[in-house]
Parts: sequence; C-alpha cells; structure tokens
Amino acid sequence: MLFSTLRSSLRRFSSSAICADRAVVYAQNGDPSQVLRVITYPNIPQPPPNSVKVEFLLSPINPADINVVEGVYPTKPTTEDALALSEDQQLFFVGGNEGLGRVVTLGPGVNSLAVGDWIIMTKQQAGTWATSRNVSVNDVLKVPGFEYVTEVQAATLTVNPPTAYNMLSEFIALKPGDWVIQNGANSAVGQAVIQIAAARGLKTINFIRDRSVPDLEQLVQKLKGLGATYVLTYDQLADKSLRNKIKEWTASKPIRLGLNCVGGKDTTAMARLLGNDAHLVSYGAMAKQPLSLPISLFIFKNLTSHGFWQSRWYTQRSLSEREILMSNLVDLMKAKKLDTPDHDIVTITAAESDEQATEKIQETLKAMSSGRRGRKILLKLESS
Amino acid sequence: MLFSTLRSSLRRFSSSAICADRAVVYAQNGDPSQVLRVITYPNIPQPPPNSVKVEFLLSPINPADINVVEGVYPTKPTTEDALALSEDQQLFFVGGNEGLGRVVTLGPGVNSLAVGDWIIMTKQQAGTWATSRNVSVNDVLKVPGFEYVTEVQAATLTVNPPTAYNMLSEFIALKPGDWVIQNGANSAVGQAVIQIAAARGLKTINFIRDRSVPDLEQLVQKLKGLGATYVLTYDQLADKSLRNKIKEWTASKPIRLGLNCVGGKDTTAMARLLGNDAHLVSYGAMAKQPLSLPISLFIFKNLTSHGFWQSRWYTQRSLSEREILMSNLVDLMKAKKLDTPDHDIVTITAAESDEQATEKIQETLKAMSSGRRGRKILLKLESS
Repeated sequence: MLFSTLRSSLRRFSSSAICADRAVVYAQNGDPSQVLRVITYPNIPQPPPNSVKVEFLLSPINPADINVVEGVYPTKPTTEDALALSEDQQLFFVGGNEGLGRVVTLGPGVNSLAVGDWIIMTKQQAGTWATSRNVSVNDVLKVPGFEYVTEVQAATLTVNPPTAYNMLSEFIALKPGDWVIQNGANSAVGQAVIQIAAARGLKTINFIRDRSVPDLEQLVQKLKGLGATYVLTYDQLADKSLRNKIKEWTASKPIRLGLNCVGGKDTTAMARLLGNDAHLVSYGAMAKQPLSLPISLFIFKNLTSHGFWQSRWYTQRSLSEREILMSNLVDLMKAKKLDTPDHDIVTITAAESDEQATEKIQETLKAMSSGRRGRKILLKLESS
Repeated sequence: MLFSTLRSSLRRFSSSAICADRAVVYAQNGDPSQVLRVITYPNIPQPPPNSVKVEFLLSPINPADINVVEGVYPTKPTTEDALALSEDQQLFFVGGNEGLGRVVTLGPGVNSLAVGDWIIMTKQQAGTWATSRNVSVNDVLKVPGFEYVTEVQAATLTVNPPTAYNMLSEFIALKPGDWVIQNGANSAVGQAVIQIAAARGLKTINFIRDRSVPDLEQLVQKLKGLGATYVLTYDQLADKSLRNKIKEWTASKPIRLGLNCVGGKDTTAMARLLGNDAHLVSYGAMAKQPLSLPISLFIFKNLTSHGFWQSRWYTQRSLSEREILMSNLVDLMKAKKLDTPDHDIVTITAAESDEQATEKIQETLKAMSSGRRGRKILLKLESS
C-alpha cells in the first residue's frame, strides 16, 4: 500500500528522462555483492494523503540487511514497497531497513510532522537505501530533539541502541551496582550495552574475540573508556580460574543477566558464570552455532533463556512506548553518555554513474561479508 | 535440628538390644548398589514438641534418589537428619526424599495433625527409607482426602504429579483445545502430564523411545488410554514430514508449550515443532546431553527456555499454595482422572535379616541403574 502510488507513477514515467532519484536495489535474492545494483529513476510524485516525502540523509548497511538480500531473514520487503521501473513489470526491491530521513514535502492531512523534521523508519524493510521516498506517517517516528544529535547518531537509532536498552530493562529489574555479562562486546549493540549500563550504574563483564582487532589492548582500553568494568577475551573465558576471579570482582553477587550474540561453546562457558535465577538473552548468532546449555542450569539454577528482536518489539508496542524509547536514547546521547560505534560512510555522489555506483556498492558488500567487523557502514546517497 | 533429639537418643541406646526400627542408609556417597545398607536400630523416642512420630507406609525410590546417594544432586541430606549409631559418631544418611507416613504419636503442642493421618514430606532429603521417624509438623503436609486415594497414589504425590501439574500451569495460560508437546512421555511425569492435560481438555503430542518397551504398540495404546492425543517415537520425530502432519492435526494452531526430560538432538527436533512465543520447559536430562537450540528460535520465534524443579517450587511457595496443589491432585485422583504409573513394590519384611535386606536393596538399585524404565519402584519397610 505504502508505495503503490509511487509504483504506478513510476510505471507511467518509466521511459521519461527526468532523472533525479536513485536507489540500491535487487531483483532477486542472492549474494549482495552480486545482485545489488544502483539505479536512477524518475522523480517521485507528490506524497499522497497522510504521507510525507523524505530525503534520506544516511542509511546504515547492517549485517541483517545482507541476510535480507540473501533471502534468509524472516522479515522480507513487500512487493508493495518495491519499484516497478519498466513495462515488463519486473520488481526491484530497495535495500535497507534503517535510515535517517528529512521531511521535504507534506502530503494532505499531515500535521504530526513538519518540513525539516528528522524521521526514522519503524516499518521493517521499507527500503532506506534511496535518495527519497514517500512514506506513510504511521511508518515513521520523528527523532525527538534531533537538533542535539548527529546524523550518524540519528541514522543508527532504530536498531542497535534500542536492542541494548531493552535487553537491559525488559527481562529483569536491575539496580545500580548489579552485574551484567555479555559477549560480542565490541559489536555495535555490545558497545551500546556498555554505555547504557554504565549510565545506569550497572557493572559489566565483557567478552571479545582476541583476534577481533590487531591491537587487543587498544580495544580493551576503548571499551573501558566507554564504561566497561571488565573486558576479557574468549580465551580467558575458557580458563576455569576465571570463575574465582569473577567471584572476587562481584563480591559473590550473582550475575543475573547475560547477553549473547555469539553462540557455541563460548556462550556455554559464559552461561555457567551466571548465578541462580538468571536470564540469558540472545540477540545474535555470530558463531553460527546453536546455543548449547547443560539442562542442569535450567533445572537447578533456574536459568531462563530468551531471545530478543527489536523488530518484534516495534510491532508489539504502542506509538507512545516507541516515542518514549527514542526520547530516552536521545537524552543519553545529549548527555554524551551514548555515542555511535566507529563507522565509515560510503558516499555515492550525484556525479557518479549508476555503473560506478553499483561497483562501489558491490565492493562495499564484499568487504563486509569478508568479515570486517567493529566498524559500522553507512550509506550516503546524494541526490542531484 | 529435626532429628537432633533422635540422634542423641540413638547414641544413648546404641548398645541396646531393643530392636524395632530399620532404615536404608549410607555412610558415604557412591554407587547405591555398593554403599547402601539396611540397619536396625533402637526404637525412636517419643516425638519432641511440634513433632509427630510417623510410620512410613511406602517410600518411592526415585532416579533422583540415586543421584543423591552418588553425591551428585544439588540438594543433600543434612547431618542433622542423619543417624549416629555408635560411639565413634559415624553418621549414616537415610536415603529417600519422598514417602507416605502415617502419624502414630503426637508430640506436645501438635494440633494440626491427628493420629492416623497420612502425611507426605515437604522437607527435601529428610530420609524416608525408614520404618519410623520423628518429623517436625513444619516439614510435612497432610494428604487431603487421604481416605480416597491408595497408598501408592499418596506415596508418589510429592514429586511427579506436582511437576506435571505445575509445568502445565506456571509458564503459559492454556485453554481447552490448546496443544502441548512432550518427550519422555512414558516417564512417571510424562504419564501424569498426559492425564492432567486430558482432564483439562488439552491435547498432547507425546514422544517415546521406540526401544523403551518390547511391545511398542502396546505402550502407544496404554498412553492413549491415559488420554494422549498422539504418541510418536523419536524416530518419527527425526522425519521431516512430521511437521506437515502436525500442522494437519493441530489445524496449524501453534503449539506453545513443550516439556522436556531428555535433551540432545531429539529435543532440538521437538523444539522446532513449537510455534511462535512458545515455552520449552526442561525437568530432566535422561539423554545426559545438553539442550542445544538454534539461536534463531529464540530471536525470531520468541522461544523461551525454562527449567522446572518441584523442590524449588516447595521452598518458594506458601503452605496454603502447597495445600491447594495437593488438594487439586487428590481431586483428580478421586475423579479417576489421575492414576499412578506402573510400579513394583519391594517389600522388606521384619523376618529378613539386615544382611538379606541389604542384598535385596542393592539388587534393586543395580536393576534400576541398569536402565529398567517405565516402572516406578517403591519400598515397603515392614516394622516388627
């Protein structure tokens, strides 16, 4: 429904030469470094009622976006949000789930947003790797206090910081001085966990891969700078003496929240460090291995194992809850307690041809899937 | 505290020849078929204040009891509940956690119980493999409506039926017509799950080992007779076509409760049959393998994995909650909706010597640990 007006209009204009808008699209699922291409298409029309036209300022390329393009992610773009650019009706899906847009035109009946407002998408897989789109007001959230945050902060506000924020509050009530343990601590979510936990007075024990960066000590210091209480490698996790060390650090206070984005044996070892009545929350599976836990942890230590998926959270919560969440996160950013992880911005200028742009996108995706981690990639598609 | 009076009195009478009481005991942890022995000891004294003397009518030998004797179970008998029979102060731990006692003498100040009442132990590992003991009124529950239930029903009321009852009600609110899936369906808990679920109008899909009994078809019919909707083997669980069959059976209604006492790959396969927002509750680990689950089930299907341990339930709930639970179970038994699993009673008569009795106990334990399953063992220690 959302883009049906756009679609029919695009069909009408398909042979026109009025070129201005651009998107990163794919016609079928596959390896992103093969199937993604950049196309230019006619300017989109005026927004229909209760919609606004937004210009995307910056759109992250997240690991999950790769899975969507591959066709292996549970949420998929709808054909309604796809572009039909030619007479043969072939549909092009626009990549991208997260993104920061600036409102440029209001459709009839819109009074909740103003021109110049910054918005982020709450609709899943609507396609944010584009210069502009018309979007329904129901599918976006205005970034509260957007004048206080950077473009990068706002563009990455929808997925990682809320995942961290909600995992720290939805499963167990933690008080200042309580402990949280996590793996993948150098991921974007992991870094947000460290910062949000520190802002709340929670202490964190953080695990990282010892081969994740050339200079391990530098990374440890960086995470400590963000507020991490302890930073350890998975090698140290495998060492049985760690249990006693942790008892000392925590003064035997049971750790009741564990956050996991890895899986496999390192996560099993981490789960053993949890105390009675603890919650293990999984939000990723970087090791591509199952979560394997001794049943005794469940029966005798009353462990509960959950998953967390921010996408589901958005679909289940009210608009006001979503607004409160954003507002809490922006407040943390304004207070300099929550910053974005290291990132690179891939800019595609208006001067580059579709072919050049396609090559740049494919190279970027190739580099991402070959395992460059720790740095977030954002896409800036400049309009002409 | 509980048996301190008993202990000092036993010390006093240790060289006496007034023999009447007997117990199955062990001096140190180890293989039950080696370390258990039957001893005769002087009659226990009059019960102290707020205690009653009970005569045990029937005491189950549960698989967990074996783990306790081996020393690998999280709850252990206290030295206060142990017997000190000789001058050298060596302590003998009395085996048995569950058991049906009949009140034979009231201690001073007891008005909540009457002579002739049937009681079951709520204190863990107090030692029920004995002819008689003094027990605190705080550590027992009167079997409500005991005139309507058999000795076997009452003796097995504390562990398995409440485990089944609570797992069906504590994790998710199920309505008549809803589906439950479980493995180990022929275990004592599994059979109770089938019956309690049927009494509530819940439908069950039950998995059993195809080698668990010589006549598989007979077992299937038996479980169906108890109220099982479907009974399948783990081999059938491994077959991918089962998913479609189950969709047909359930008319695609999501299964939101899974009960596990096995672990390993069969449990992984069973978990995949659960719908969105389901709860997997583990209460046993017969396969002695971890619970291994794809992280995607947690993240994208919102699976929650819990453990259940009836012992913890007792320690966390009020007396009135415990009484209501017992009363609900006895009501089901009175209504012929919940019966005991197949069982054998091992009787040790007063005429048998301690040596003969010891041999019988050790043989029984040897048979149990060599894997005879599906039949519950109860111990009847006759007093002289």
